Amino acid sequence: MTTSTPTRDRIIDAAMELFGAHGFRGTSVAKIEAAAGLTPGAGGLYHHFRSKEDLLRAGIDRHLARLRALRDIRATFTGVGDLRTELTLTARYALAELDEERELLQILAAEARSRPDLVRDAVNQLLGTSQQDFAAHLADLGNLPPDRANAIAAVALGSLYSARMPRDLFNADPTLDDETFVQTWVDMLITLLTP
Amino acid sequence: MTTSTPTRDRIIDAAMELFGAHGFRGTSVAKIEAAAGLTPGAGGLYHHFRSKEDLLRAGIDRHLARLRALRDIRATFTGVGDLRTELTLTARYALAELDEERELLQILAAEARSRPDLVRDAVNQLLGTSQQDFAAHLADLGNLPPDRANAIAAVALGSLYSARMPRDLFNADPTLDDETFVQTWVDMLITLLTP
Repeated sequence: MTTSTPTRDRIIDAAMELFGAHGFRGTSVAKIEAAAGLTPGAGGLYHHFRSKEDLLRAGIDRHLARLRALRDIRATFTGVGDLRTELTLTARYALAELDEERELLQILAAEARSRPDLVRDAVNQLLGTSQQDFAAHLADLGNLPPDRANAIAAVALGSLYSARMPRDLFNADPTLDDETFVQTWVDMLITLLTP
Repeated sequence: MTTSTPTRDRIIDAAMELFGAHGFRGTSVAKIEAAAGLTPGAGGLYHHFRSKEDLLRAGIDRHLARLRALRDIRATFTGVGDLRTELTLTARYALAELDEERELLQILAAEARSRPDLVRDAVNQLLGTSQQDFAAHLADLGNLPPDRANAIAAVALGSLYSARMPRDLFNADPTLDDETFVQTWVDMLITLLTP
């Protein structure tokens, strides 16, 4: 059993930032300790985590928990405007979420080869819960059967992911500005939701 | 000036497979030589490439050239059916292209941190030319102005990429079967092309 303490959180913050910048293997325990304000090399990290891998897992779990919290907040926004406004806000919110998860995505992509199971589980959770949430929301908005809502959620969310993946994973340039992207995405989606 | 020879091609084949499986750093010149049927460690590779990095660049260039050839073939398919048939074929063809490029994408993602410029240039080329081609095609199909065709191409292609990226880059499970994905994608696109 581990309970959240300021030191524990500080270690996770420092570790995820270092993993993102230098990779998991390129980040020593001593470096994480130094960045978290502990004595480097004294092993204070091990009072909170069994291993560097345990720490990575905790960092991923914290990201996933934060995403769940963000979604709960988002749910309070729904139903405030017409369909176009609501979809526009949803798209902008999803892009902002992806920006928040940039560090996590880079760590996961870099570790995919060395820790395939850990990465697969995390990404399955990320994508699976996003798709379920969005499908449920679409089913409400468009009065759609669950299978259809799920299919539309997969295609539409995938498109939003692709607005960030080239930049986050390959340092590539965006192929379209955000505002035009969101507007076009809403145009595509809205026709499927309105009979 | 280098001309394509069977040995040169064999070295590229071996290198790209090894880079994909073990990473660029994890693949020695001797290992590539052995896999290409040369004497390992004898430096035969250097008759064809100045360095391992030069070899990686040649592997990427060959992928890009192959993609251009595939697109030329695809162009001969257009106009053979109604709009729905044509978009369905386009989507299936794009997914097959992505499957062909799986090894390249994994190499690019793994090298993004250590060789940011090389990776950025390759991905900008890949995404840029795909989007230009598809936008030109959409402009024809739907009689759309260039800016609108470009925006739709970005959103729609992004969605297709996302049908493969989770698997290719994170070992994750697909969130929808291919046939439903393609069908839903066509539904979304077709309404924007038909007045």
